[in-house]
Amino acid sequence: MIIRPAAATDADAIWRIFHAVVAGGDTYTFPPDTPRTDALAYFMGPFDSAQGEPGIRSWVIEDAGGRVIGMYKLISNYAGLGSHVANASFMVDPAAQGSGAGRAMGEHCLEQARQAGYEAMQFNFVVSTNTAAVELWKKLGFQIVGTLPKAFRHKTLGKVDAYVMFRSLIP
Amino acid sequence: MIIRPAAATDADAIWRIFHAVVAGGDTYTFPPDTPRTDALAYFMGPFDSAQGEPGIRSWVIEDAGGRVIGMYKLISNYAGLGSHVANASFMVDPAAQGSGAGRAMGEHCLEQARQAGYEAMQFNFVVSTNTAAVELWKKLGFQIVGTLPKAFRHKTLGKVDAYVMFRSLIP
Repeated sequence: MIIRPAAATDADAIWRIFHAVVAGGDTYTFPPDTPRTDALAYFMGPFDSAQGEPGIRSWVIEDAGGRVIGMYKLISNYAGLGSHVANASFMVDPAAQGSGAGRAMGEHCLEQARQAGYEAMQFNFVVSTNTAAVELWKKLGFQIVGTLPKAFRHKTLGKVDAYVMFRSLIP
Repeated sequence: MIIRPAAATDADAIWRIFHAVVAGGDTYTFPPDTPRTDALAYFMGPFDSAQGEPGIRSWVIEDAGGRVIGMYKLISNYAGLGSHVANASFMVDPAAQGSGAGRAMGEHCLEQARQAGYEAMQFNFVVSTNTAAVELWKKLGFQIVGTLPKAFRHKTLGKVDAYVMFRSLIP
């Protein structure tokens, strides 16, 4: 698997994966019928850099055959006086679950964030029942620093908690 | 004091208060030099309602002399599968601190959120050293459900924690 910056030519793959993931209604707040335009804007920008913040950084991961099986983006969680804390979003093609793509992107993302000078990384909304994600982020050094009671309307489980997860990037 | 929906003619007052508040660098992540356009967009929209979410609701509070001394906005914290949780932002003219305007707007906002059908309200980033805000929200039923370590670069105190605060709106 290789991870490389996302290009305009990845739009079809990113949309395909986004749509497959949000159709599950179990990991992201995006409605299952989120349009392609919104999906691409979320993962590939445009990013409002009016306040001098670094723009959105988007990456894709390819399997051994060169097929895009996942993507992530890295941004500031807040502009201005909170811009030293990064935020990131990840999606893996449901057909590639268990391939290690999520972990590979997570490690890559942490390194990119360090190189960009971020001092910490925060996930604002990790669905508590998405145990694969929660466990992966714990393995990569994140802690649950907040619990949002019944903040997510899960497609099959009803209202479930979401977590705020955080880790320092300072050695 | 009366609280009424914000109108286009309130733009000057909203900008004046916004600028005075963010100049302190002690409560919001907005940089002290945030431009007027961004300030008005934040408090008065436009709001992207492409996903069928209710738009931004903006209110102002007037003192006995009819002068606008504060404003707040009420929105969904997330679109889609998290849209049952409200979010709100408040600012009070520094010259009107202690007037009770913050509390009056907070109570008004909770009632508006209930009427709009929200099931809970979440504040994503309450600066921990902003004790007036933290104490007010506790009095109004909010709990600290998360702590973001050193997530805010305070103008005079350096990096300080921020809180995630949450309360249910279901009786």
